[in-house]
Amino acid sequence: MAAEIVNPRSDSAPEPDGENSPLDSFDPAFALHRGGKMAVQATVPVRDRDDLSLAYTPGVAKVCSAIAEQPELVHDYTWKSQVVAVVTDGTAVLGLGDIGPEASLPVMEGKAILFKQFGGVDAVPIALATTDADEIVDTVVRLAPSFGGVNLEDISAPRCFEIERKLQERLDIPVFHDDQHGTAVVTLAALRNAAKLTGRELGDLRAVISGAGAAGAAIAKFLLEAGVGDVTVTDRKGIVSRDREDLTEVKRELAEITNRAGLVGSLDHALDGADVFIGVSGGTVPEPAVASMAPGAFVFAMANPNPEVHPDIAHKYAAVVATGRSDFPNQINNVLAFPGIFAGALQVRASRITESMKIAAAEALAGVVGDELSADYVIPSPFDERVAPAVTAAVAEAARAAGVARR
Amino acid sequence: MAAEIVNPRSDSAPEPDGENSPLDSFDPAFALHRGGKMAVQATVPVRDRDDLSLAYTPGVAKVCSAIAEQPELVHDYTWKSQVVAVVTDGTAVLGLGDIGPEASLPVMEGKAILFKQFGGVDAVPIALATTDADEIVDTVVRLAPSFGGVNLEDISAPRCFEIERKLQERLDIPVFHDDQHGTAVVTLAALRNAAKLTGRELGDLRAVISGAGAAGAAIAKFLLEAGVGDVTVTDRKGIVSRDREDLTEVKRELAEITNRAGLVGSLDHALDGADVFIGVSGGTVPEPAVASMAPGAFVFAMANPNPEVHPDIAHKYAAVVATGRSDFPNQINNVLAFPGIFAGALQVRASRITESMKIAAAEALAGVVGDELSADYVIPSPFDERVAPAVTAAVAEAARAAGVARR
Repeated sequence: MAAEIVNPRSDSAPEPDGENSPLDSFDPAFALHRGGKMAVQATVPVRDRDDLSLAYTPGVAKVCSAIAEQPELVHDYTWKSQVVAVVTDGTAVLGLGDIGPEASLPVMEGKAILFKQFGGVDAVPIALATTDADEIVDTVVRLAPSFGGVNLEDISAPRCFEIERKLQERLDIPVFHDDQHGTAVVTLAALRNAAKLTGRELGDLRAVISGAGAAGAAIAKFLLEAGVGDVTVTDRKGIVSRDREDLTEVKRELAEITNRAGLVGSLDHALDGADVFIGVSGGTVPEPAVASMAPGAFVFAMANPNPEVHPDIAHKYAAVVATGRSDFPNQINNVLAFPGIFAGALQVRASRITESMKIAAAEALAGVVGDELSADYVIPSPFDERVAPAVTAAVAEAARAAGVARR
Repeated sequence: MAAEIVNPRSDSAPEPDGENSPLDSFDPAFALHRGGKMAVQATVPVRDRDDLSLAYTPGVAKVCSAIAEQPELVHDYTWKSQVVAVVTDGTAVLGLGDIGPEASLPVMEGKAILFKQFGGVDAVPIALATTDADEIVDTVVRLAPSFGGVNLEDISAPRCFEIERKLQERLDIPVFHDDQHGTAVVTLAALRNAAKLTGRELGDLRAVISGAGAAGAAIAKFLLEAGVGDVTVTDRKGIVSRDREDLTEVKRELAEITNRAGLVGSLDHALDGADVFIGVSGGTVPEPAVASMAPGAFVFAMANPNPEVHPDIAHKYAAVVATGRSDFPNQINNVLAFPGIFAGALQVRASRITESMKIAAAEALAGVVGDELSADYVIPSPFDERVAPAVTAAVAEAARAAGVARR
């Protein structure tokens, strides 16, 4: 790659207001966010006329003409194949809900810098002024020539399923809704290591997922793909079962493939004798329900900031406890997955991200823990520098094996 | 602003193919373009959990909530107000014409790094997979929450006029078609200094513009706004005059406001006795036509790479000669205008770019030459470091005076 040249913001740059606002003094998060969290930099020099004549006119015309003749050269001679659009409509931002595109931008910028920091992938926040699924799809399809991949983010269910499916049908670059699949990949990695630690097979496990939104639905499907014995999903009204008549299309689909025992009733009922609890919904699970789980259970209480089961309670009954929080052991954090998954997919110019690539990512992530495996260490730290390279390599290899790699 | 942290591409980054391709050996422009010309960088640290808890969850949620309550805070706490979308549909790229969005990307990346290098403005290439004017407008309107401004680029006429007008109507951020207005601003700056050098007023000058596309139409209107005495525009069929029945809407509008002498006929006829020639069309002007211009004429032959009049010929008859080329004196180069124009507009969060802001930009640009004014120096070099700060300050002040500044 070309040398990276840092271009310090010149005197003529639009400067954020230098005065300390009351918000900046109120909280360090505001002071840190002032002026945003990211910038663009040139990676080639533009110091003099000779530089300009190569990087811009007239030299650039030859590169444009070459791409016009051989379209695949766009991957070699532009940043397309290293840049991901982080696309949202601002309807399901963190736990804040539908706060709109502008208010979602700090999260999208955060995601973009995590892509860079952890995966070496460039990413650009694209917060859209529409919540119409077809308009979002059309817009992203029109943007696609400029990007090597699309990371969908914080788009509410059930539109997120339709948007992802339609984009995958219409585009030949990876489209990945991180709230679904990133969470699913990290959950599977933790589950594999928890099973290994306690000497069980995935096929022996019955898992209960509290939450049937984007994350819950994706985790359910992905765990079944990976060979988990049975999965039961619950929503606010209880167990998602075939006899319910209030189910959305996605939940009807879940009812078909989950809950083989045909359970009916509440989350508490589902937990009776279950091996795994996976919380992606918020709310609280009463201690007796946790106590009713099978011996040596796994409790992954991922709601933020308040886990569905406090780790202190969970540890009384469970063999392995994980949360979404960084201040407890075993943090289930998407940043363990999405940077490496996109880095691997982009590296081989994958046309899409297959189930096998996601499973390879989970296995690679679980593998980083290696011999250090313990009840408090079933998943690596986000700052473990081995994570992204391991996931990247595994995803690239799986893309080649799946026949979706273009180099 | 926050300290800039450079994040070198990690091992897991998607690397461009390291092998030298035949194209790379064939031309240094290809070698330079390998892997693209730009990258994203974090401007805040993401080294440990504490950093992550401020730049991402949970700290970021407070910033999102604050913007949801007070929408204008998006300008303070995200990069929105320092990032411009460089939008094209790839239909009029350099002299190459309609080469499509992917093949246009090297130019858009080049533009983006010029924004950064010369104006300190972040910019993102957005090459669209549609050439339908309404689809382009709808798409850019949906993208707008993420950007502080929109630079339209290399979109063919006449759609470029409609797209710009509709976007300006629907958006409250600056929308600027650089092929039109950037060229017009730099041309006016050169013309002002040429007039000053030869002791004439703009009102005394009759200018002839060869080319009625995006640049020609914009220059014609802008010079008249600025007080040039008369402007005559020619297209391939000759002088744009009211009696012609083959005119597009834009040319009909030009016919109404230009050509006060009511000339009919060829470019050569228009040049007879004219004070200024402005070439933005390509083609060649025969030497006798140049010779027929008024004494002390100005010849701005801006076609690239072949000026409409070679400078050696032009100098035989003209007092001031300018071209679009960097290897002759007086290069009319858009990079003298667009970085500072956007930097100034973004600095004061202007809702649009007014005629008065463009005229202020031209005056500031002309002013940089100052006392060093000579026939070979009517316009500064793109690498003159005084240019962008001067244009930025003038544009910001003009925005305030025009009442379009929001701070």
